[in-house]
This record gives sequence, structure tokens and C-alpha cells, in this order.
Amino acid sequence: MTSLATTQRSLADHAVRHPLWPPLTAGCPVTSTDEVAYPLEVDYAYDRVPADLFSARDLTAPRGLERWAPLLPPLAAPGLGEGGTPLVRLSDGVYVKDESRNPTWSHKDRLNRVAVSAAVASGARGIVASSSGNHGASAAAYAARAGLPCVLFVSPYAPPAVASFLRAYGAAVLTVPLEAVRPLMRRTVTELGYQAVSSMTETAHTGHPFGPEGYKTIAYEIFAELGRMPAAVYLPTGYGELLFGVTKGFTELVKLGHAGSVPRMYACEPAAAGALAEAMRTGRHAAQVPVGPTDAYAIDCAVGSYRGVVALEASDGAALTVTDAQMAAARDELASQGLWFELSSAAGLAGLRAHGPADAEGPVVCVATSSGFKDIATASPDTAYGPMPGDWDTVLAAVEKAGGLPG
Amino acid sequence: MTSLATTQRSLADHAVRHPLWPPLTAGCPVTSTDEVAYPLEVDYAYDRVPADLFSARDLTAPRGLERWAPLLPPLAAPGLGEGGTPLVRLSDGVYVKDESRNPTWSHKDRLNRVAVSAAVASGARGIVASSSGNHGASAAAYAARAGLPCVLFVSPYAPPAVASFLRAYGAAVLTVPLEAVRPLMRRTVTELGYQAVSSMTETAHTGHPFGPEGYKTIAYEIFAELGRMPAAVYLPTGYGELLFGVTKGFTELVKLGHAGSVPRMYACEPAAAGALAEAMRTGRHAAQVPVGPTDAYAIDCAVGSYRGVVALEASDGAALTVTDAQMAAARDELASQGLWFELSSAAGLAGLRAHGPADAEGPVVCVATSSGFKDIATASPDTAYGPMPGDWDTVLAAVEKAGGLPG
Repeated sequence: MTSLATTQRSLADHAVRHPLWPPLTAGCPVTSTDEVAYPLEVDYAYDRVPADLFSARDLTAPRGLERWAPLLPPLAAPGLGEGGTPLVRLSDGVYVKDESRNPTWSHKDRLNRVAVSAAVASGARGIVASSSGNHGASAAAYAARAGLPCVLFVSPYAPPAVASFLRAYGAAVLTVPLEAVRPLMRRTVTELGYQAVSSMTETAHTGHPFGPEGYKTIAYEIFAELGRMPAAVYLPTGYGELLFGVTKGFTELVKLGHAGSVPRMYACEPAAAGALAEAMRTGRHAAQVPVGPTDAYAIDCAVGSYRGVVALEASDGAALTVTDAQMAAARDELASQGLWFELSSAAGLAGLRAHGPADAEGPVVCVATSSGFKDIATASPDTAYGPMPGDWDTVLAAVEKAGGLPG
Repeated sequence: MTSLATTQRSLADHAVRHPLWPPLTAGCPVTSTDEVAYPLEVDYAYDRVPADLFSARDLTAPRGLERWAPLLPPLAAPGLGEGGTPLVRLSDGVYVKDESRNPTWSHKDRLNRVAVSAAVASGARGIVASSSGNHGASAAAYAARAGLPCVLFVSPYAPPAVASFLRAYGAAVLTVPLEAVRPLMRRTVTELGYQAVSSMTETAHTGHPFGPEGYKTIAYEIFAELGRMPAAVYLPTGYGELLFGVTKGFTELVKLGHAGSVPRMYACEPAAAGALAEAMRTGRHAAQVPVGPTDAYAIDCAVGSYRGVVALEASDGAALTVTDAQMAAARDELASQGLWFELSSAAGLAGLRAHGPADAEGPVVCVATSSGFKDIATASPDTAYGPMPGDWDTVLAAVEKAGGLPG
């Protein structure tokens, strides 16, 4: 089944439509103002969606993103088996959507399959992105898979394992000063013919108009696996692309008649930043905030996006902020149940534990975005250890410290 | 559907049978000799396997290991969504079974779901393992998930990201000298009531008798996804548990009448070790070899197992060895197609590229075991980078070096 995508439309005014091609990667040229750049989204011929798209089908049907091809832009770039991640049930019944089970071990693969597909379909000569880690490596992987060169603008201070990750797929990796990044991205687009798969706008985040469509598949998978809508979903939130995409997926399920209402969506931002919380508090469409110290480097964004506001309004949701200590507690709780995530990835569970209702009427899902290998503490020198003596007392002391002596 | 497991039997003599419980974790007490310790395997009531187990079923059926419960020992420990990994097709048509898509990002999760289940079902007080990385972290994750304490004996010289990984799940991590490991493991078993999920024998590897059963599911998944048997399978090989398990899975498919013959199985060991190649060359049931320098630390084993010999004989396969340079070339080839694996994980593709027939009559599958985050070079200080100047010439130079300038 091929894509039913029809047009791009402005989030600021749904009446403002643009053709599907080329992807408008710098926000809506009609509705954006000096104050707020407005993202575009993709619209579809919803009346032509197959009625059985969300019902059970046999195991020989396409898996991952291909399963949802009618409700995605054309998947012109080859995939790596992204999507189809498990819902793992914690001991108290909360579900964790484990997005570390994607091809580059984060949710970003869903976005990049779609955004790199857009680049391939529109004849781009390469891919350019700026990223603190997961997004850049994922973009590089999908570019490599599609046979396109890739330029990444990254922080020179990435955690050591993440630095290796960003360079793994053969991209040109650049650690220029932050203020030079967007001008150089734009030049890479205009002079080299590359397509940007992260935001080129300064005053508010817009990003690739097709990218968040990939995140809709998280909502589809949750609905298909639970057999119903969850009551609430908690997500780590930086620029709000994940939040927007997942919310849009649930909204489409309602629009298509498969469920009665959208789950409450909770955006979980680091307390050290919180651009969406600030926008909601002040009634603006997007906000800029100072960023304080935090180890949640994947989501400590200084600018927000109108996408986040749209998602929270559509779902009667809320913007929550969580401290590093709350995220660390959530990360440790997940590890104690066999799931190792990076600090930012635990923001969803942290939001639930710090602010969540104990009495949600239905399943509660926390989206966990990326593996512990990307944590800022991973592979730092103080996590190394030296040799220990080989006697039984050493074993007993270590076992006792870990709480493993029989009672 | 519940498990159809019936007994444990010796690989050395199938007539030598033991009850299914308790798991005999130190090899067969009847058939083992001073020269070779023989592993046990699990037997099943094959005449009671449902006829439709391997045919397509709807998407609401159990996923991952649960799908194959009749042909596994009882899955008494809770899972983390292991298994169900994708087959990714390289540009030349070779398939890569991407085992980095498991809960702790390696194939070991299939083994540990089964082995920790055996520990839970037999009333163990904890889990003990020795490991260079993936196996230990996976054992710790499944122990945590099951609420059991875990003791890991690991190298003090693990790569820095792997050191963080081994400690992530709350296990007691011990870096005692190598010669002290097995005596201390045995004492942990006898004095603390823990169950060993890695080998306790010195003269040949035996390991947990239930563990390799988990690897059978790789064969089942490949068969179900391709809709036929592959012609050949290339696997990274250390102690041969993966090789044995996958081969057993294919053998069962033939036994159950779903296919005519078992694929040729190719064991790919580092040239710096190669215990299985040595056993095959000398006609022995297991060999010990000196281990030379290699970065393939996940599979540089000094002792082999009779499991490997059994698997190669059952499949008319062969033991291949690959150099670090051949593994590095295979790792780079995979990364250039969007797949980042650790060096050891690329041994399968390296074996195919170095020794494989170009004319296999049917699909060829390489099993790739674990993510690039575990590579010995990952997060090493020489992979770090500093700031760069923010001018266009810096971008152009980097793009040119990466081969990304439009021609």
C-alpha cells in the first residue's frame, strides 16, 4: 500500500497549504512571523485509509514502519528494521515503550527513516543535521543506508561513547561553535544541495516537516499491542517532535473511528530548561528559556516549538518538568527491572513518578527513548575499575554490598 | 502453550539421560572424562509440537521467545521482549540478523531469558556468571528483572563503555584474577545457592544446559521470515553456544518435517584463537588453544566445547578463522550500510567475505551479535575530538574527506 500523503500544511493555520514536494525544511513561509517560526505537517487522504490497517494481521505482513505506509510520507529510503519495539510492563503495571530497540538504539530512527526518505525522494545530494547525539548518529546511519553523504554538526563535548557513535557511519562530523551551526547548515543546503533533517530556524524549532510523522507509529504500535487507547502517555521532551508525532498518531486513531478519545499526553522536560512549560505558562506559541546545568543533554533545549503546544492542547495534556535527581531515580528504577536507559530517556517515567496521578483509568505508558550507552556518565573515567584480589572475602563483601546475601 | 521439554541428555551419548530438573550446570556427570567435559542438552516431546507452530499466525500471537514456548524449557523468569530481531538485507543480497536489537543489545538475551528461567524454576538464590561483557550484562539484566541478585566475574580491562554496562543493573561486579574465577564461581554456587549461567568446567566449555536452547529461536525466526531454509549461515563463534543453538533449531525444523535439510553452518573464530577450528583439524571433541593478540575480545576463547563439533557435523559445515583486519573490514562494510557492530560481531560477515562461496544456492545469513557501543575502540581517548573553527572552509574540508562533495 502506498502513501496517502497529500500536502504540507501550516500548524499555525490549517488552511495554509503547500504541495507535498519539496519538503519545506525551514518552517512555513506564509504563516511564520519574526517572533515564531511555524512548522508544517503532512496531511493525508484519510478517507482512503484501509479499514483493517489497525487490526490484527498475519505475521507475514510488513513489520515496522512499512506496516503503516498509507499514513506516512513515501518511504523512498531503505529501512533498517526500525519500529516494532516492545512494551515492557514494570512490576507496578506501568508500560515502558522501549525505543532503545531501534536500529541505532533510539526513537530517532523512526524520524530519520521518514526524513531521509524525503531527501531521497526530492533528489537531495546529501543529509545535514545538528545533534547532541542520537539524532545525528541515526541520520548518519540512514544516509549511509541510502548511499547519501552526511554532515553532522555536533558538540565537541559529547560523552566519549557518543563521540564514537556519531562517527561510526562515515559522516563528516563537525564541532564548530554553536552560533556558527545554523548559518553553516543553511550554506550546506544552498551550496551543496543537501537536505536538512534538523531545524534550520532560530526563533522557534521547526525541523523537517515530514520527520515527526515517523513518531506516529509509536502511537499505532501502542494501540495495536494494548488493543485499546492508553489513559496517559509520558514522554521525554526536548523540541517536542516526539510529543507531537505520538499525539498526532493517537489523534488519527480517533479521527478514523478506532477509539473515542486521545490519551492525556504529558511532556516531561528537564527543570533546567523547559521551553514548552514556559510557553504553556505564558500562553505563547513557543518560548525561549535559559538552560541551566543538567546531565539530560538530549533534551535540554533553549527553544521550543509550536508543535508541543498543539500536542498538549489536542490531548488535554500538560507540560511537566523533572529535576536531574528525579530522572536519575527513574533511570535507577528502570535499571533495577532490567532496562538501562540514558538519563534523558528516563524523563517520562520521572514525570509520572513525580507528578502522575496514581489512579489513571486505563494503561499508562512511559516512552523511554535511548540506551544507557549514551548516558553522560557512561565510559567516564570514574566508572572504570581495577583488579581485585581473588579471595572469598572479596566476593562476600561485594555480594553483601549489592544486597545479594541470602537472608 | 507450555514447554514440551522432557529430559537433559548428554551430547556425548544421547542414551545417557537425566531428569529435566535440576539443570546440571557442570556438564554431564556420567559421560565427561578428564580430557573433555561434555555438555547436556534439552530433549522435547517432539511428537506433541503443534503443526502450525512455524506457519504464519496473527499479530496478536505472542512475540519473541514466547512464540516458541513449546520448544523451549519453561520460561519461568519474566522477559524483556527479547527476540524478534530483524533480518536486514545488504546491497548484495546477503542477510544480516541484527541481534543488537535485543533488550541489552546482544544475542545473549535469548540465552539468559532461558537460563535465568531455569534458575528461577529450580529455586536458585541468585545468578552467577563470568563474562567479558555482553553475557554478564545480559545475565544481570534478567536477574534484576526476576528479582534475583547477581554476581559477575569480569575482566578489569573491559572497554570503558562496557564497564559501565556491566555495572548498570545492580550486580556485584568482581574483577578477580582469571585463575580465581571458576573456583569462586563454584563456591558462590555451593555456599550461596546461586545458579551459574556460564561455564564452571575447565577442560572444555559446558555452560548452562538450558541456555543454548534460547538461540534456537534465531533459526526459527530466520526460517519463518524467509519462508524457507537459508543455504548457509555464518556466525561469530567463541565457545560455540550460539552455533550449537542455531544449528539445533534448524535441525528441529527438519525433524518436524518443515524443511528438507539443514543449512551449512560456518563457525567464524578469531585467527588469534580458534579452538573449534583446532578441534576439527585434529579430530578431537574439544581443544584448547593459546590466545594471541586480538581486539575481538567477545570471542577469543582458549577452550572449545563439544557443542561446536556437534553443530558442524550435523550441518556439513566448517570452522573458519578470520583476522582482526578481516573483521574490521566487515565491521566497516556494515557501518557503511547503516549497521554499527562491535568487531567480534562482524566475524560472521568476515568469514563469508574471506572464505564464502559466491554461489550459494539460496539465501545466505550472517548473524551479527552486538552493537558497536561494545567495541574495544569505542569511547577510547583517541576517539575524542575538540572544537573546530566555525568557517565554511572547515565544512568543505570535512565534507571532501568524507567523500560528500557533489561530483
